[in-house]
Amino acid sequence: MAKTAKTSGLSGFPEWLPAERLVEQHVIDVFREVAELHGFSGIETRSVEPLEQLLRKGEIDKEVYVLRRLHAEDGDGSGAHGIDPARTLGLHFDLTVPLARYVLQHQNDLAFPLRRFQIQKVWRGERPQEGRFREFYQADLDVVGQDTLPGHIEAEVAVVMAEILSRLPLPQVTIHANTRRLSEGFFRSIGLEDHTGVLRSLDKLPKIGPERVRALLLEETGASPKQAQACLDFAGIRTRDASFAERVRELGGGGEMVEQGIAELTAVLERVEAAVPGVICADLSIARGLDYYTGTVFESFLEGHESLGSICSGGRYDSLAADNRHSYPGVGLSIGLTRLVSRILSAGLAVPSRPVPTCVLVAVTDEQSRPLSDQVARTLRSRGIACEVAPTAAKLGKQIRYADRRGVPFVWFPGTDGAADEVKDIRSGEQHVAEPGAWEPPAQDRTVQIQPGT
Amino acid sequence: MAKTAKTSGLSGFPEWLPAERLVEQHVIDVFREVAELHGFSGIETRSVEPLEQLLRKGEIDKEVYVLRRLHAEDGDGSGAHGIDPARTLGLHFDLTVPLARYVLQHQNDLAFPLRRFQIQKVWRGERPQEGRFREFYQADLDVVGQDTLPGHIEAEVAVVMAEILSRLPLPQVTIHANTRRLSEGFFRSIGLEDHTGVLRSLDKLPKIGPERVRALLLEETGASPKQAQACLDFAGIRTRDASFAERVRELGGGGEMVEQGIAELTAVLERVEAAVPGVICADLSIARGLDYYTGTVFESFLEGHESLGSICSGGRYDSLAADNRHSYPGVGLSIGLTRLVSRILSAGLAVPSRPVPTCVLVAVTDEQSRPLSDQVARTLRSRGIACEVAPTAAKLGKQIRYADRRGVPFVWFPGTDGAADEVKDIRSGEQHVAEPGAWEPPAQDRTVQIQPGT
Repeated sequence: MAKTAKTSGLSGFPEWLPAERLVEQHVIDVFREVAELHGFSGIETRSVEPLEQLLRKGEIDKEVYVLRRLHAEDGDGSGAHGIDPARTLGLHFDLTVPLARYVLQHQNDLAFPLRRFQIQKVWRGERPQEGRFREFYQADLDVVGQDTLPGHIEAEVAVVMAEILSRLPLPQVTIHANTRRLSEGFFRSIGLEDHTGVLRSLDKLPKIGPERVRALLLEETGASPKQAQACLDFAGIRTRDASFAERVRELGGGGEMVEQGIAELTAVLERVEAAVPGVICADLSIARGLDYYTGTVFESFLEGHESLGSICSGGRYDSLAADNRHSYPGVGLSIGLTRLVSRILSAGLAVPSRPVPTCVLVAVTDEQSRPLSDQVARTLRSRGIACEVAPTAAKLGKQIRYADRRGVPFVWFPGTDGAADEVKDIRSGEQHVAEPGAWEPPAQDRTVQIQPGT
Repeated sequence: MAKTAKTSGLSGFPEWLPAERLVEQHVIDVFREVAELHGFSGIETRSVEPLEQLLRKGEIDKEVYVLRRLHAEDGDGSGAHGIDPARTLGLHFDLTVPLARYVLQHQNDLAFPLRRFQIQKVWRGERPQEGRFREFYQADLDVVGQDTLPGHIEAEVAVVMAEILSRLPLPQVTIHANTRRLSEGFFRSIGLEDHTGVLRSLDKLPKIGPERVRALLLEETGASPKQAQACLDFAGIRTRDASFAERVRELGGGGEMVEQGIAELTAVLERVEAAVPGVICADLSIARGLDYYTGTVFESFLEGHESLGSICSGGRYDSLAADNRHSYPGVGLSIGLTRLVSRILSAGLAVPSRPVPTCVLVAVTDEQSRPLSDQVARTLRSRGIACEVAPTAAKLGKQIRYADRRGVPFVWFPGTDGAADEVKDIRSGEQHVAEPGAWEPPAQDRTVQIQPGT
């Protein structure tokens, strides 16, 4: 249909229909449930931060949305005469900058290590394109220590990540892990000191392929052909178990840093494998973010949807925030939730078992007997069965069609003149006598199920 | 403590500590659960609307936050050379304007009557003060019809409102109902044609008292002293049952419109009383919004916190939206959720039974046996018991103090060298042998309970 400008969508600001929102809500619910089972506290931060805070991550400053009161007097720092970053507010573009500020602000009221999850919308003024939004949900989970944070937390966060991903309605997900010490140690142990340069080159592997990466390594990092080959071989190592270690050593990797990295990565693999089998692998090509992260780093890919990029990433960072008394190291992971939900919906990876929460439509025989239908609905609801009462006392066939059009699976007919109530499954047409205080819908119909798509 | 500017809060942008957020999350969960039980679909709309849409409700235009990309080129309509309302985006200040746009935009994909709830943050650039925020949650629930909407939906929405409010951790809530036809019909039937003027005067009763309202009625609506007295008497009618009707008639109210209003209001009282006894009353002083609402109107007050004003308001409106094919009448209610949560927290009306989701801290005897502790935690979690594993293998006394500091009620000691596991309730000090596959915490400790404050 032709949409008028007035009612058309805004590019980059996705919005779901009610049935689609059930899928998004399910993803949010799973994230929250698993996080809480692992003792993570949910928090929300305000949507705005002073612009000067947001600009600290220099490279994405152009993505920030700045706020201005429409009838602002002189006082809000964002008038027509330029922007004052200390007094201007911007919408947060991730949940990490707000977390750092929250931790510093509330440090005296928080118990460390802080285990927190946070599911909120963030905004980026990027040019919208396939899978890139201007407003989207991020779902983050971090453990933040005060001054110290034990290394095994890296594996612990990966376990939570694996549990969340394995419970979402998704094809096979694989979490790819690497650790900074292993990469840096390896490059150093084969004689390459410019380890960040090597990482930067290897990061381009998926985009430009091995031959052009080889050229980069030769030109920009001063690698010899043999060293470049070793780097490419190193980045090709991908194993489900600890056997990556032997292959690193065969390529000439060794020394304290490499062995430390091997021990770290092995611990992560073993702990995640014990908790959620078949999800984690060591992938020594993972380079992105290794200059930011200081320990283990994770990316996650969806089988058949590798073009989506990493759907859940994270790792260890040694300085989320600091003041003159404390530093705050952390381990975190982040899911680009809207992006993932958008793919689930567009690829039909999951569908709700019905488009509405309603399990039962209680029919109304005539307006005089509406209180009787209300009573049936109340009894069903008191037993946790979602229902609505028909809006009009239309002919029963019309009420059944009404339920059908909404996707409500059952219609309840209150008995009149002493007759028993009956309930009809409008999918099968089956109808039988029932009592509102005792009738049970089939387990799969009690609440909306989010099912794998076809 | 002295807070640095860098980390201090922003006035008007509230933020909760983890334990406080548990209360807010509970309020959100209750709203959603009751709404879904009544067959309402959750939706979210984008946070922004074109400024021209937001400005239609003319009187609050000064509260709108306008967005601007920090490095905007010429193209976003909000540059230094003035604002183009068609191309500029603003943050929504309520959930009604977005609902109207959503309904028009998606009308071909929605089933009517649409039953939708929506819990989202909204923004208003007002001067912050006690209980007034610049960023806050609203929780809305509306039934929207296409072209028609039966009158009994007004009672239905009031029932949902009553159920939500009665399940929240609040003192006694009373829903005050009035209906436009009753007020307007009464004023007309005693000879006052300027019924909106009368409503406007009566709306000031709580603020300026009856004598000054009487003066207003005499001066501004042309009422005689006798008519003014009748209006004041009318506004003083407040009954739990249908007896309001007789008193209206005694004051001289009559005619078709009055009798219609009486029938409407009586139906609402009876239906809500049947569903949630002791919550609803007829209150003929309710005037606010009667010029916007076209049928029944609701306000709700919290015993002992009347100064908060109405915590949940709504009613019937005949034109949420319209295009050249359809009009969309609705009945809705809205809770200023952040405002309510803020009061719950500041007055200590409710407290979480513990500050974290964690029920059990699994102790770690030494780092070598951490996998054993992990296994215990996995088993407990598989049974829905939230737990975390101690971050370090400190002395057991220190691990117990760690749990205590976090507010975790139980500490689990995995048995070593063939000894049985034991679990300790650190509040009572009681400790006994337990198996992770069988142990049950007391029901009230399984998950966080939100309890009435003291």
